[in-house]
Amino acid sequence: MTDNHVSLNMNVRGLEQSATIAINDRSKNLDENGKHIYRLGLGQSPFPVPLNVVNALKQNAHQKDYLPAAGLRQLRQTVAEFHRRKDGVEASADGVIIGPGSKELMFILQIVFYGELMVPTPCWVSYMPQANIIGKKVSHVHTRKEHRWMMSAEALEEHLREQNDRYRPRILILNYPSNPVGCTYPEEELKAIARVAREYELILLSDEIYGQLHHRGRHVSIARYYPEATIISGGLSKWCGAGGWRLGTFTFPPDLQWILEKMSVVASETFTSVCAPIQYAACRAFTGGISIEEYLLHCRRILSTLGNRLATMFNDAGIEVNSPEGGFYLYPDFTRFRKQLKQRGITDSRALCEDLLEETGVAILPGASFGRDAKELTARLAYVDFDGAEALAKSKMHAVDKPLPDDFPEKCAFNVIKSAQTIIDWVKG
Amino acid sequence: MTDNHVSLNMNVRGLEQSATIAINDRSKNLDENGKHIYRLGLGQSPFPVPLNVVNALKQNAHQKDYLPAAGLRQLRQTVAEFHRRKDGVEASADGVIIGPGSKELMFILQIVFYGELMVPTPCWVSYMPQANIIGKKVSHVHTRKEHRWMMSAEALEEHLREQNDRYRPRILILNYPSNPVGCTYPEEELKAIARVAREYELILLSDEIYGQLHHRGRHVSIARYYPEATIISGGLSKWCGAGGWRLGTFTFPPDLQWILEKMSVVASETFTSVCAPIQYAACRAFTGGISIEEYLLHCRRILSTLGNRLATMFNDAGIEVNSPEGGFYLYPDFTRFRKQLKQRGITDSRALCEDLLEETGVAILPGASFGRDAKELTARLAYVDFDGAEALAKSKMHAVDKPLPDDFPEKCAFNVIKSAQTIIDWVKG
Repeated sequence: MTDNHVSLNMNVRGLEQSATIAINDRSKNLDENGKHIYRLGLGQSPFPVPLNVVNALKQNAHQKDYLPAAGLRQLRQTVAEFHRRKDGVEASADGVIIGPGSKELMFILQIVFYGELMVPTPCWVSYMPQANIIGKKVSHVHTRKEHRWMMSAEALEEHLREQNDRYRPRILILNYPSNPVGCTYPEEELKAIARVAREYELILLSDEIYGQLHHRGRHVSIARYYPEATIISGGLSKWCGAGGWRLGTFTFPPDLQWILEKMSVVASETFTSVCAPIQYAACRAFTGGISIEEYLLHCRRILSTLGNRLATMFNDAGIEVNSPEGGFYLYPDFTRFRKQLKQRGITDSRALCEDLLEETGVAILPGASFGRDAKELTARLAYVDFDGAEALAKSKMHAVDKPLPDDFPEKCAFNVIKSAQTIIDWVKG
Repeated sequence: MTDNHVSLNMNVRGLEQSATIAINDRSKNLDENGKHIYRLGLGQSPFPVPLNVVNALKQNAHQKDYLPAAGLRQLRQTVAEFHRRKDGVEASADGVIIGPGSKELMFILQIVFYGELMVPTPCWVSYMPQANIIGKKVSHVHTRKEHRWMMSAEALEEHLREQNDRYRPRILILNYPSNPVGCTYPEEELKAIARVAREYELILLSDEIYGQLHHRGRHVSIARYYPEATIISGGLSKWCGAGGWRLGTFTFPPDLQWILEKMSVVASETFTSVCAPIQYAACRAFTGGISIEEYLLHCRRILSTLGNRLATMFNDAGIEVNSPEGGFYLYPDFTRFRKQLKQRGITDSRALCEDLLEETGVAILPGASFGRDAKELTARLAYVDFDGAEALAKSKMHAVDKPLPDDFPEKCAFNVIKSAQTIIDWVKG
């Protein structure tokens, strides 16, 4: 893209499409030109929206009123109940704000909060571009492979000590189960991070949008250990398969009500309120119940089975990757093949992913898109290119308390297995 | 609201809820406390979403994919066709961007464009708060009652001459039929404004969201006279009765593609894309057809009949107001009663509207919310507090090419007539 006009805000010059959206668009183009594309780039749930939630949308298709900026009262109550029930945390309707995606809410949070953002890397692709758009300061806490690419409390404390600025206002963004890593924090680590956060009076934005996709259904929120200053971010996009519906939620403790109030004001001047029919339907989704829990059990089992199979394939081939614990991502590290790749002219993660896409049609995203050093040979793979409705139907033929048969990945996600093998063969040359 | 925390962005300190949203919330509170409220504050269409559009939403309730940031291709095409058909302007799918309301698109436009906003007053409530949020420069072109509160080309030219800064990058926002005035520009005035705009190389943001509610169906877009630099803003909220659905559109000429492209980038990092089921349903709405044209004919006739009746009532009582030409607003001027009002302690438009609401339950918005001097005794009245479905059904009993019977307003919008009478009685003391 060339920004050839002078009247562009300097903050957006050179800014390109969100990496995840861009790879989707690019894959579509290649696809339309006849090349088969394995879509492991965009992190979209492969599963359909649960039928009773779709039906709730149909029943509310006539809803036409502008709803309050912070959201439909009934939905705010339902979301608060959801977090009380699922996460065992205090939450009230007054502390909930509904947005057109949690991404938009994060942007508005960045607008209203005066202070620094702290983001562990690798991290989700949009935190930093959002900060750039409004000229905000961001600091990175880099993680290490040895720590599964997850931030340790020690690394956080060291980072804060090094800043040597005790009273700097800061928001620390955590995301677990992690996009892009696929791992989550053990409870002890959450407790330790909470201790550091309390000592430095950090505000936590705890992005738990993959919480309900913890593969064993054992997601724990850090809000249990740092309730006074943790904002929980969630939404329908991942666990409910409704990314395209655009509904996200932030849940605030009473002490942070001042942020929520100002976010509502900015909401009233920007997106106004979230689509009314969607908000009514979301009440059904967050209410939960047996059929939704059953849906989640199957989604988790499928994702865990597939993700673990892929991890085994990669690790057996010498491409290091952590076993997934939640969500639908793997974060392979190709460092062991650095020499061979260099001989092919590949010395950074962007070149790795571009050449892979061009030569094999497999779309994955470079580690550089997640805030990592460009030279680090890592990438994110979203194992979602399969027919989620079919996989759910097949999973339902097996008792939920048993593992799926060994050949389930081949039968239900053949293209994903094939693309992993393609990556392995391509890397090995 | 007290902003009692230090870590608030200075740009949002003191910023309050959008005036239209706030009056809605306040009215609801009074309502819940047992007082009957006449809701002439919030500008929401009283009419239901056309049935075939609601059905299109039902049929697309299962759509779950993230759509492209600029919008569903099919919808962008349909919107371009809509403007070609309705406005006789060139427009192509590539020039259309879809947002969660045109308000959000305006905010993003303000973010990406480096330059000044020019806004005639009285103007819609959110242009200026949006500018404040991101610290943007705004200049006002004040209009006069004698010119029906609409900007003349002469006033625009004088304003530009006074700025004495030939090459300042500027966007001029026009809004017609006007919120809050209810009038629109005659074709000759549009041509004259276009001439000035071309001379000063202004970009026009032509907010035509009430275009289809021109009471005689004769809306003309300024894009016909200044095609090279006019962005047309539209959406489903007003003519389609779907404010709560949150779908707005901007349509760009090829020369301004650089703005659209950068807006898409910011979209991909903020709201991501507009709700998928809504975008599919919007295709049905913008496609139009006989049933939608019939719906529009009845909406227009009802609004014209009611608005003109109210204007007559006010003018007969000495409260000056222009006859409405489109949309559903009147902008009465209470200046003739300044002396009597002063004796009751009312010296500005905010006090006028607050006392009116407290004492009579009639909610209207002060001129100060529309960028006018606080002391000017003007206000906006949205004549929408009636059952639009019932009014449509009754209107359909009368041939569309005939005027509605004289008693139609009393029969179908009794509360609106009653609140106008209440205002008159209250002002006269």
